[in-house]
Amino acid sequence: AAEEHENYFCRTFLNRMSEKRTDSEWLKAKQLHSTTVYILFSSLSPLVTSSRDKDQPSKPDVRLCRFGREAVEELLGKPEAILIFLGIEMQKTNVGSLEESVLNGEDGLIAWFALNVDDIPVSKFKLKYPDCCLIQAPMPGLLQLTEEEAGVVAQARSVLAWHSRYSFCPTCGSGTKVGEGGYKRSCLKEDCKSLQGIHNTAYPRVDPVVIMLVIHPDGNQCLLGRKKVFPAGMFSCLAGFIEPGETIEDAVRREVDEESGVKVSHVQYVSSQPWPMPSSLMIGCLTVAVSTEIKVDENEIEEARWFTRQQVAEALGKNSQQPFSVPPRQAIAHQLIKHWVGLNANL
Amino acid sequence: AAEEHENYFCRTFLNRMSEKRTDSEWLKAKQLHSTTVYILFSSLSPLVTSSRDKDQPSKPDVRLCRFGREAVEELLGKPEAILIFLGIEMQKTNVGSLEESVLNGEDGLIAWFALNVDDIPVSKFKLKYPDCCLIQAPMPGLLQLTEEEAGVVAQARSVLAWHSRYSFCPTCGSGTKVGEGGYKRSCLKEDCKSLQGIHNTAYPRVDPVVIMLVIHPDGNQCLLGRKKVFPAGMFSCLAGFIEPGETIEDAVRREVDEESGVKVSHVQYVSSQPWPMPSSLMIGCLTVAVSTEIKVDENEIEEARWFTRQQVAEALGKNSQQPFSVPPRQAIAHQLIKHWVGLNANL
Ligand SMILES: Nc1ncnc2c1ncn2[C@@H]1O[C@H](COP(=O)(O)O)[C@@H](O)[C@H]1O
Ligand SMILES: Nc1ncnc2c1ncn2[C@@H]1O[C@H](COP(=O)(O)O)[C@@H](O)[C@H]1O
Ligand SMILES: [Mg+2]
Ligand SMILES: [Mg+2]
Ligand SMILES: [Mg+2]
Ligand SMILES: [Mg+2]
Ligand SMILES: [Mg+2]
Ligand SMILES: [Mg+2]
Ligand SMILES: [Zn+2]
Ligand SMILES: [Zn+2]
Repeated sequence: AAEEHENYFCRTFLNRMSEKRTDSEWLKAKQLHSTTVYILFSSLSPLVTSSRDKDQPSKPDVRLCRFGREAVEELLGKPEAILIFLGIEMQKTNVGSLEESVLNGEDGLIAWFALNVDDIPVSKFKLKYPDCCLIQAPMPGLLQLTEEEAGVVAQARSVLAWHSRYSFCPTCGSGTKVGEGGYKRSCLKEDCKSLQGIHNTAYPRVDPVVIMLVIHPDGNQCLLGRKKVFPAGMFSCLAGFIEPGETIEDAVRREVDEESGVKVSHVQYVSSQPWPMPSSLMIGCLTVAVSTEIKVDENEIEEARWFTRQQVAEALGKNSQQPFSVPPRQAIAHQLIKHWVGLNANL
Repeated sequence: AAEEHENYFCRTFLNRMSEKRTDSEWLKAKQLHSTTVYILFSSLSPLVTSSRDKDQPSKPDVRLCRFGREAVEELLGKPEAILIFLGIEMQKTNVGSLEESVLNGEDGLIAWFALNVDDIPVSKFKLKYPDCCLIQAPMPGLLQLTEEEAGVVAQARSVLAWHSRYSFCPTCGSGTKVGEGGYKRSCLKEDCKSLQGIHNTAYPRVDPVVIMLVIHPDGNQCLLGRKKVFPAGMFSCLAGFIEPGETIEDAVRREVDEESGVKVSHVQYVSSQPWPMPSSLMIGCLTVAVSTEIKVDENEIEEARWFTRQQVAEALGKNSQQPFSVPPRQAIAHQLIKHWVGLNANL
């Protein structure tokens, strides 16, 4: 059995406790509880502190700001505020405080919520966190989090992004109301057909994407492509959205053919990664080419090329973007390339 | 390298030719072309002929009705009609007709379209297909297609189902217009923010679902559950929607825990299957339990139990539903169970 990979955006310290989403009393009590942690987003950017180590100015230490109930009370009242129940901390709670809370008829669980308000007055929070700021560009900003916090941000940002674009009922165009701890939106029009039965219109969207490293028939080269928007010299794995009525394997074969003209046969799943831009699920695969001629789809890809194992092995190690680089370790493309470099020539 | 599985709804004889979706002249010409094939849906049910063999009355021979342009002309004019470009036939076209069409400045490709009209006058089509009818219940009706046509129906039905529930812009509530051969809906409100940049609101939805066979720590039993709506005696694999910010592997661990209380560790991907009810992507896995006590989530599951390899092996073979059965071969659950039965005891 293959080992399991751990990608960036995958680790978390929360248990989602989805059964509590329909327990509005419990949710309400947790919202008001003194141990509850709130993380804040403004236009889908988290509020963080970022401190720079003099020795490593290019690697800022970025941490989520964690607020209590008093700090967010005013924001919660804003009409555009969206609140998401993220889960409870998995680590054992401190025994003393657990005993105390059980005495109070409580469960001792530490709940986390994410709150998005489109204009957060950052200055207000400088009292508690003098260094606080909003991550500016999600890329590369969101890649500077710690491994543990990245998973929590992925969850929160994807759900908040869904709310930001799906506030109207797609079935009838009416307004909707938020329920189930932020994981549901129901149409406000009483006789809307979206309310008869269970339909995906009410639930957050997750877009499955295949991302694949194509191995040359000789086993010693791989195919990478670049979009015009990539930094100079950077090449990455081909990728594309899975379409309705398609398997993972067929989507790999179709997207490779569309983007590069290369035909591939066998597909092997390697690992997956949530990618909160805004809500993709990257499904990482290796696949073996049965043709080698490249003919790129110029709408999507600027250039695609075969690279030797040696070339990509070198690019994995370095930071410089010249003359040839691959995405950073946080991207599943990097991990797929690394995985292949570590395999022997026969898939 | 693992072999690739072929599940029901996976095979197709069409090449989607997605690059033609933006070529409206080509699409228009194909719509009018004499070799073009239309398949019809009414409220997401395909128009088929179903003939029964005297010897096997329980296995009807169900085939899609294939119409030409004249037959659908009137339906295409209906305001609620939705037309989807499905692709072109992959098999080599007949050399004679190809030569002829190339002489005419044509490409000789045979295009397929799906057309949904919510009230199709079936009687009108009895002239060409005396046996034609609409598949009534999608389950099990859609499972009676041939392997080859099932993939085409999966594609068409998922895209048509998206149109039926997403005709309003979820970002602003306005109406939308269909584009790109039926693969896109764009907001009609000029300044809608869904029109700035590329957003998933404009594209068909695919919902990734994990479905998993949980193996007992002893390696010789597996966990199956049943929902109240299942036929008497039927048990199947546990399954659930992947949530935003989650990997395939974490979704497996979470859903098994939620639905059965069993803890699992290692997860191994096996195969995937599009499931057009209305637009899921089933991601089939095996996973190994590290606990055995069962505590079902009674909202979702009526009962869950450990079954021996022997028990499930017997159930795979028979059609009777008493006292214990598994889903039919068309379901990926059946294929996962069969895959495990064929493995030796160590995953
Ligand atoms: N869910 C989606 N979100 C964004 N773009 C999509 C989606 N589905 C299909 N597309 C289209 O796919 C293009 C990107 O191509 P690819 O990622 O290779 O499939 C976008 O420019 C869109 O035209
Ligand atoms: N995309 C979706 N479509 C339908 N139901 C969903 C979706 N996402 C979440 N759900 C919820 O998931 C329940 C089914 O549970 P499960 O399949 O085990 O995740 C449904 O009853 C809904 O409450
Ligand atoms: Mg792509
Ligand atoms: Mg694509
Ligand atoms: Mg593409
Ligand atoms: Mg389920
Ligand atoms: Mg679920
Ligand atoms: Mg479930
Ligand atoms: Zn509605
Ligand atoms: Zn709009």
